[in-house]
Amino acid sequence: MPPVPSAAEGAEAVDVTALLERGRTLATPVLKAVVDRLAPPMDTVAAYHFGWIDAAGNPADGDGGKAVRPALAVLSAQAAGAAAEAGVPGAVAVELVHNFSLLHDDLMDGDEQRRHRDTVWKVHGPAQAILVGDALFALANEVLLELGTAEAGRAARRLTTATRALIDGQAQDISYEHRERVSVEECLEMEGNKTGALLACASSIGAVLGGADDTTADALERYGYHLGLAFQAVDDLLGIWGDPEATGKQTWSDLRQRKKSLPVVAALAAKGAAAEQLAELLAADAKTDVDERTPSAGDLDTFSEAEFAARAALIEEAGGREWTAQEARRQYDIALEALDSVPMPAAVRAQFTALADFVVVRKR
Amino acid sequence: MPPVPSAAEGAEAVDVTALLERGRTLATPVLKAVVDRLAPPMDTVAAYHFGWIDAAGNPADGDGGKAVRPALAVLSAQAAGAAAEAGVPGAVAVELVHNFSLLHDDLMDGDEQRRHRDTVWKVHGPAQAILVGDALFALANEVLLELGTAEAGRAARRLTTATRALIDGQAQDISYEHRERVSVEECLEMEGNKTGALLACASSIGAVLGGADDTTADALERYGYHLGLAFQAVDDLLGIWGDPEATGKQTWSDLRQRKKSLPVVAALAAKGAAAEQLAELLAADAKTDVDERTPSAGDLDTFSEAEFAARAALIEEAGGREWTAQEARRQYDIALEALDSVPMPAAVRAQFTALADFVVVRKR
Repeated sequence: MPPVPSAAEGAEAVDVTALLERGRTLATPVLKAVVDRLAPPMDTVAAYHFGWIDAAGNPADGDGGKAVRPALAVLSAQAAGAAAEAGVPGAVAVELVHNFSLLHDDLMDGDEQRRHRDTVWKVHGPAQAILVGDALFALANEVLLELGTAEAGRAARRLTTATRALIDGQAQDISYEHRERVSVEECLEMEGNKTGALLACASSIGAVLGGADDTTADALERYGYHLGLAFQAVDDLLGIWGDPEATGKQTWSDLRQRKKSLPVVAALAAKGAAAEQLAELLAADAKTDVDERTPSAGDLDTFSEAEFAARAALIEEAGGREWTAQEARRQYDIALEALDSVPMPAAVRAQFTALADFVVVRKR
Repeated sequence: MPPVPSAAEGAEAVDVTALLERGRTLATPVLKAVVDRLAPPMDTVAAYHFGWIDAAGNPADGDGGKAVRPALAVLSAQAAGAAAEAGVPGAVAVELVHNFSLLHDDLMDGDEQRRHRDTVWKVHGPAQAILVGDALFALANEVLLELGTAEAGRAARRLTTATRALIDGQAQDISYEHRERVSVEECLEMEGNKTGALLACASSIGAVLGGADDTTADALERYGYHLGLAFQAVDDLLGIWGDPEATGKQTWSDLRQRKKSLPVVAALAAKGAAAEQLAELLAADAKTDVDERTPSAGDLDTFSEAEFAARAALIEEAGGREWTAQEARRQYDIALEALDSVPMPAAVRAQFTALADFVVVRKR
């Protein structure tokens, strides 16, 4: 992990857990009420996806994720001088779009598990995964546009731009699966689309709803976009070297899924013996495994821990680990720089900074 | 078919072919330009879906459908006293939502053919059908919201409402497949969601973009909603008794797909020997066939023409055909009544009426 000093005064004093909890507390009741508008059985399927009920329909207290997006959305309203509450419809809309994309991506990718539970298409079938995803996307627009204000229209437009980027990112992800080589630039572009764009929207949507001008909103978007890239770089590190007990994933998780993540593409782009040896191994893996692959599992199940460890060691030797750690730090710096141009209360700036610190030093 | 006299003076003098052609001419170039914003391969997949290219990527001049929606959208702008052109972004947005729903519904329903061509999931795979559907939905919002006006925000809100109804209708359609009995009311509600809501939006969105108030927009929506129900009733008649040469579908098409369309549910709701005999036959069909059904074909392939003809005769004897024809006429009357409350130029009113006449007397 990269060492991360807090860049804004007071950031180290921010209680990030409380900040995340505030976003969750403000957004979740509204999110539940909005999802409850769905006709049966879509309401139940969506409630299962969000972890509010289990597959049998009983109340559950599922892992709703870290809730960074709602925290950013309500914070961004305060950056514009509005109350945190003004950002709530934005927080809800962003969560709806995020979960729309999870529902569809899990089906497209054949992923059977998410947040330690069976995915919706696995439990309720592909048709419900498509339909409820569509419904969440529509609800996201509804919850903004029903505000009926000019600000809401601008927020909806920015959310649409972010959604288009999400879709572009998924299209790139799918196409890269069929390619032997992906450049570092292509990987960063995909991760910017898949992770950066929606964090950018989360970081600015509350401000837009709170009346911020385009210059302010654009700067907050830049903060969120690069924060997303930092987040994803850390995620890519955890996907290979993360502690399974902390991440809840298997060891070498991304290697098992043959993900062309940043450490891998950076290692392959390097010169030297380790990079060449890695390239040969991965090319051989692809050949060996191509007939065994099913749409629902890209795992290299027959490989031993030692074989994955060898690949991880080569990635590290070729410099992929170090490069990615530096990239996380570089993106973090750009994110904080973007904040500098936005006038906002010192306490709000400290909170934005603390969230960035949290994202980059997290262990899971 | 129900006899349909033209209710507005001058409607019989309207050249409906020219009216449909105008909508197509105004909307198609913009639609193509908007779809062209999609990143590869989504642009190609979308172009295939719209019939602009064939599966090999060569230019094609596909059957883009009757283009009733774009014609209504540009006409509705004129109802508000604006130029037809003011309705074009609305026409494009409605077409994008319509085609988003076709892409997803074809996949959910396992339909392999549309407009005499293989469906997108069949040619490009399920992932592309999901992804490009999502992209068209996002583009629909984009094309409205990028106008940046208050009117565009209101139009986007109405389009979102219509999209939610479309999704509700598809959810109902899926759930009815698993049920033995569907009431006439449930069938009408589903058809209102699947067909009425988007025609309602098409009939009012140009007016909203042209500055119409909510009362006018609501009345135009009512016209479109009931026009949609009339359209669907006629479609349901054609689905059983339509001439295969005109419709391009198989004989007894809806019976083969065991669709619980209006003539069927109306016949089953009737009293008498024919209704009872029909109910027994359909229940037996469901039992016989349940193990043979695949997600991609609900056809009762082993049945002879005579067996379908016998079912169609029972539906007619039980009154399902006559009831549906009357229902088409009833919905047509409500549609035209809704127009009465909207002040508009006589020529525009005559064109709305002529489009309603066209929809109800069409043979395909």
